Amino acid sequence: MAVLVSLTFREHYLKGGMLDGTVRFSCNGKPIYHYLNTSTFSQYTVASEWSYSIQVYHYLNTSTFSHSGIVLSVNTQWHRSGLVSRNSIPVYHYLNTSTFSQYTVASEWSCVKIDPAAPLDKACLLGCGIATGYGSAINTAKVEPGSVCAVWGLGTIGLAVVMGCRNAGASRIIGIDTNPAKFEIAKKFGMTEGVNPKDFKEPLQDVLLKMTNGGLDYAFECIGNVKTMKVAFDSVHRCWGKVLIIGVAPITDEFVTNPYAITMGKQVIGSLYGDYKVKTISNLVTEYMNKKLMVDEFVTHKMGLDKINEGFDLLRSGKR
Amino acid sequence: MAVLVSLTFREHYLKGGMLDGTVRFSCNGKPIYHYLNTSTFSQYTVASEWSYSIQVYHYLNTSTFSHSGIVLSVNTQWHRSGLVSRNSIPVYHYLNTSTFSQYTVASEWSCVKIDPAAPLDKACLLGCGIATGYGSAINTAKVEPGSVCAVWGLGTIGLAVVMGCRNAGASRIIGIDTNPAKFEIAKKFGMTEGVNPKDFKEPLQDVLLKMTNGGLDYAFECIGNVKTMKVAFDSVHRCWGKVLIIGVAPITDEFVTNPYAITMGKQVIGSLYGDYKVKTISNLVTEYMNKKLMVDEFVTHKMGLDKINEGFDLLRSGKR
Repeated sequence: MAVLVSLTFREHYLKGGMLDGTVRFSCNGKPIYHYLNTSTFSQYTVASEWSYSIQVYHYLNTSTFSHSGIVLSVNTQWHRSGLVSRNSIPVYHYLNTSTFSQYTVASEWSCVKIDPAAPLDKACLLGCGIATGYGSAINTAKVEPGSVCAVWGLGTIGLAVVMGCRNAGASRIIGIDTNPAKFEIAKKFGMTEGVNPKDFKEPLQDVLLKMTNGGLDYAFECIGNVKTMKVAFDSVHRCWGKVLIIGVAPITDEFVTNPYAITMGKQVIGSLYGDYKVKTISNLVTEYMNKKLMVDEFVTHKMGLDKINEGFDLLRSGKR
Repeated sequence: MAVLVSLTFREHYLKGGMLDGTVRFSCNGKPIYHYLNTSTFSQYTVASEWSYSIQVYHYLNTSTFSHSGIVLSVNTQWHRSGLVSRNSIPVYHYLNTSTFSQYTVASEWSCVKIDPAAPLDKACLLGCGIATGYGSAINTAKVEPGSVCAVWGLGTIGLAVVMGCRNAGASRIIGIDTNPAKFEIAKKFGMTEGVNPKDFKEPLQDVLLKMTNGGLDYAFECIGNVKTMKVAFDSVHRCWGKVLIIGVAPITDEFVTNPYAITMGKQVIGSLYGDYKVKTISNLVTEYMNKKLMVDEFVTHKMGLDKINEGFDLLRSGKR
């Protein structure tokens, strides 16, 4: 995939610099696309620069691409216009990057300069899934040595959570999936036990409470399903158990919790992009290059854009 | 009220000492009753002595009084028996203290030695309500200077939250109550604005989002009502807003949240007894004696035990 980066939003940016005078990356480097923007505009940025929250705020409100998929024009003014059209039907942008194409246009705020020696076909995985899962254990939950953890859904995000829990020193990492074929690969990332809910007659929360003598320290929901979120909520220790909501549920879905249990100690915590900031992504790439982070092991198939739909079929069938 | 303290649970305790060899308080001092126990038994205590979670664990599981209100006998074995009976009907214990009587029996774990100069009729308020509210702002939420906060329900706990937000340097403290008479007293504790939901046709969350230009930094629910919890959830900033669940809802109630909003940044946090540990209560009493903490101002009436039901009537009518 070739990379075409838009560097111009305001006149200042034509000079290739940021408002703070720094140059964050150059087009001759190798950027990773990153779906969260980090700008230095607005009151919020002044209040707490680079914070996770700021990024989300920009992503939702003033990002270079609007929530509805219309790119903001490359112009000195911030107004909306279609990026491209096909047969007069606009082609919408997706998550600020739209990387399923040979060429794309992205804000510099969505790009990060990384080690030029890093292979792009692997490093790109740090632009979303692996960082999301790994960071949710390391940055958001801050898993402590000896913790008892469980991970719902052993896709890329779930496997990255498993790796994060292992690197944090968790004593038990229970992988939960209805596809037992996932367990073998999950063991490579640090899973200590695999649980298939279909193997039990009793509710999964009862199985887990018994297995852990009172409940999990950390439950990571990587599916985005409110039913599994509830099971996770019911499976954590009633005094200190933390539920990490990583899987993105449909925007109108409702997650039913028990407020009494929350007052008594259970916590519900969201994690978006593993609480990484744009400028810390390059550190993850360095960790990968130093073999502290497994990345190659996530790749099951390699296919061209012309076979993208076959790739989705493999994904849906649980084979990758 | 006279104080009768049971010091004997295991032989070791007959010597008046703790397992670690220290003497935490003497019966000749002035103990505050405290409804959370802190023992030095069990695996959990070894793991993280004095932690908040441990206290809850003991409160719910191995506390000297069982959840069902039966006191564990003063004996070398931990078994259950009735505390007292009246006409052969057992009189149940309540929250480990049962202070609505002239005499009571409590574990030493529910007592704290405090400054003997402190007036007991005021200091006792630090055994539950004031510490719960104040600590939820100071210890649990860790409100930062400049924060925008709102407090649902201006009873003792809500007023103590207001005081905590003020002492933490919050720039705006919005008090929410359907009884506007509460606003005058709340101002004394630091409330900057009072909002009566009955004064608005539109939903309260819309009012607050508009008032705060995007949402609250911290919402404190001090009622225990799942409807107001949802309003609080909808009123916080979508990127970093924190909802503190302090009011204890009925054990089977359901608090419906939006998981998408949680992943994107909203947080739901419970707070029990303001995250204070038993041994830190005496510090609160010292703060009160040093006039850093308002306590006298919470007292609206003073009545004997023989008028306790009149006191409850005043409470229900919102007059105290």
